[in-house]
Amino acid sequence: MPRTGLLRLVSGEAKAYGGGPMVGFSGNFGEQILARAKELAAISEDDGALTRLFLSPQHKAANDRVAGWMRDASLSARVDPIGNLVGRYEGETPGLPAVMLGSHLDTVRDAGMYDGMLGVLTAISCVEALARQGRRLPFAIEVIGFADEEGVRFGSAMQGSHAIAGTFDPARLTMQDAAGIAMSTALEEFGLDPTAVSGAARRRQDILAYVELHIEQGPVLERHGLPVGIVTSINGVTRLEVTLLGHAGHAGTVPMDQRQDALAAAAECVLAVEARCRAESGLVGTVGVLHASPGAINVIPGEAHFFVDLRAPEDAPRRAAVEDVQSAIAAIAARRGVTQRSRVVHELAAAPCAPWLMGQIERAVEAEAIVPFRLPSGAGHDGMVIKTIADIGMIFVRCAGGVSHNPAESITAADAEAGARVLLRFLEAFKPEPAHGR
Amino acid sequence: MPRTGLLRLVSGEAKAYGGGPMVGFSGNFGEQILARAKELAAISEDDGALTRLFLSPQHKAANDRVAGWMRDASLSARVDPIGNLVGRYEGETPGLPAVMLGSHLDTVRDAGMYDGMLGVLTAISCVEALARQGRRLPFAIEVIGFADEEGVRFGSAMQGSHAIAGTFDPARLTMQDAAGIAMSTALEEFGLDPTAVSGAARRRQDILAYVELHIEQGPVLERHGLPVGIVTSINGVTRLEVTLLGHAGHAGTVPMDQRQDALAAAAECVLAVEARCRAESGLVGTVGVLHASPGAINVIPGEAHFFVDLRAPEDAPRRAAVEDVQSAIAAIAARRGVTQRSRVVHELAAAPCAPWLMGQIERAVEAEAIVPFRLPSGAGHDGMVIKTIADIGMIFVRCAGGVSHNPAESITAADAEAGARVLLRFLEAFKPEPAHGR
Repeated sequence: MPRTGLLRLVSGEAKAYGGGPMVGFSGNFGEQILARAKELAAISEDDGALTRLFLSPQHKAANDRVAGWMRDASLSARVDPIGNLVGRYEGETPGLPAVMLGSHLDTVRDAGMYDGMLGVLTAISCVEALARQGRRLPFAIEVIGFADEEGVRFGSAMQGSHAIAGTFDPARLTMQDAAGIAMSTALEEFGLDPTAVSGAARRRQDILAYVELHIEQGPVLERHGLPVGIVTSINGVTRLEVTLLGHAGHAGTVPMDQRQDALAAAAECVLAVEARCRAESGLVGTVGVLHASPGAINVIPGEAHFFVDLRAPEDAPRRAAVEDVQSAIAAIAARRGVTQRSRVVHELAAAPCAPWLMGQIERAVEAEAIVPFRLPSGAGHDGMVIKTIADIGMIFVRCAGGVSHNPAESITAADAEAGARVLLRFLEAFKPEPAHGR
Repeated sequence: MPRTGLLRLVSGEAKAYGGGPMVGFSGNFGEQILARAKELAAISEDDGALTRLFLSPQHKAANDRVAGWMRDASLSARVDPIGNLVGRYEGETPGLPAVMLGSHLDTVRDAGMYDGMLGVLTAISCVEALARQGRRLPFAIEVIGFADEEGVRFGSAMQGSHAIAGTFDPARLTMQDAAGIAMSTALEEFGLDPTAVSGAARRRQDILAYVELHIEQGPVLERHGLPVGIVTSINGVTRLEVTLLGHAGHAGTVPMDQRQDALAAAAECVLAVEARCRAESGLVGTVGVLHASPGAINVIPGEAHFFVDLRAPEDAPRRAAVEDVQSAIAAIAARRGVTQRSRVVHELAAAPCAPWLMGQIERAVEAEAIVPFRLPSGAGHDGMVIKTIADIGMIFVRCAGGVSHNPAESITAADAEAGARVLLRFLEAFKPEPAHGR
């Protein structure tokens, strides 16, 4: 098989493997997915910008629209007690354990139209392709449109997947949005019963695997000239909040050797984070927020405050980097006569994808004559939570310039097609892990 | 003469020089000055904090109070057409050219009580000491309480000294304060005629010298254990506004080697400014304001915006530093694939003190058995403007921790006394520059 790194459309003569030859498609997969993503993007609380928040009227409208597409594709569709849209395509017999697919239908503010939606729409198209052939597999397929992955409305992400994983914390119901509306009230307004959220939880024995297709949200596939990639792990993350206290003073009157400039110290810390992460493959570190006080053009900053975001596909190298960064900050502060305080404000363990699922996805990629390429996910996804009840796998689709969380988010119809074809091949050939259910 | 670096109170047996033995004081100079500064600090628009702005009711009240002290000290007192308080103590015959002393009576918000006021109060006490001896000098003494050095109200500093120097720009009259009141209206409300500001201007032949006593506003004298210092120059300043444009991206998804992080580039620039200025004595450079956009904890900053403030006692080294800093920023940006824009937003030439005045001040310092110590002024002062019509000199008084523009601003009575004694010795021995008037 040629490994050119370029997408080769080889539908007619595709190499058969696993469950037999690939089923044909009546229409153009990629075009259908892009058209639906565009239609869905119009369901927004803002004119001319895409913003669709958890439990909003737009969330309800999007669920309705996607449920229609699900039913057209022969899936049953229901809204679960947290607001997730759940579609189901039965297997050879009703009630079989399911391969769970999907992604989220909520967005950030001024979002792009593929982050989340692409995974839901692609999964529906794959089921539609099977249904048109009248084909049932030896397992059910479920497609979830998760209600709250971004966490924009209530400031706490992944409530949709937490409900399905059975890890939803009822204390979250009292969290309020910017208008002071509690999540429990929002659920009621959505037509749901806030005391019934636990009913959304699914059992491990009913879910054979969770596989999410998502845009990469990064530039790696583009740089490698590949339409899709196989995710190895959803990176773990540690966030540090750092405060440096120096000594404010007049920018004109304090000689350089008598300064305790908190911003200059912070600048050294920013570069230390960068240097530490550059030195180790897979590790990324970012200072995205930095404030200097008092923030006057002619005053030496007496205080600097910043956040460090550190991620890695595995937990041990991330923890080592956190320790090194904290030591570096302490050393910089000590050398400059500045006091420092750094504390972990957020931490999430890495969520490795299951090797047996990576293997099956890789074979589906190869079957499409695409060079299989593995990469970690730097961004968080619902799989980090669903992992509690199922092994996870992810397929990334190339996006232009790696841009995401931005209206400029863009993919091509050819790449959407490639992603869909890989997902369908994966489903056709899917074999549960032998240990499942034992 | 012992050069201990400590203030030695040697009033009784002080070494005579120049114009003869120093006159005695009936009271304690330092205590009187501090008590008056405290009384003046109560004239504020804020309860519990000192804020006194140009042409405010508090400005008028402060002028009235200080005019009373002037008259008690045998100075005539008038308010000039811009609102400066002008006191005059005639010399041996009326109408002689004057040595002009003084400083400003306006403040920043939440100010300290010595910045500006100390120079006015000390000058009045010196004249009082002469007057109590019935002593007239071969020149007049004028004491100015400048109306607007800080520029807080209308955003344009030193309007009081501009009026006296004849460099007041009538276009300034249309500038508005935060409440939308134009400077012209404020002058009228103060009881002045905005069309008559040019009448405040003084002629070069009438001013023998301008000498200002001021708190250092920096930590140098304290570090050297000296109560006073001789200012060599009011530093020139250049301010650069710098914008760096990189590429925003997800903090988790963009590998380190594919980033164009504008904040990391800015951090390098901050350290380059610091390194350049550390390498050259007298030069100071500060980044006091820095903003990173979009400013989200999980987004690589795509844009950074900061200001650089560079000062030096002489213009040539400052200009060289500006050039080097701009080159360094360009090199950092180029290496990181970030675009940069830097432009000068403010520039003021250095205002060197006149060597002949520095010499006379130095002899007065020595006469007080204080080690003469020369230092530049990093902060701006009215002398930068008065320089147009007179040679300038400045005497700095030590302040605690170098703190200024802050309620914690503090000096000791002993240091106020030392400053006053030096200023009085300077006046007693003052000889005009031989070239004056020619």
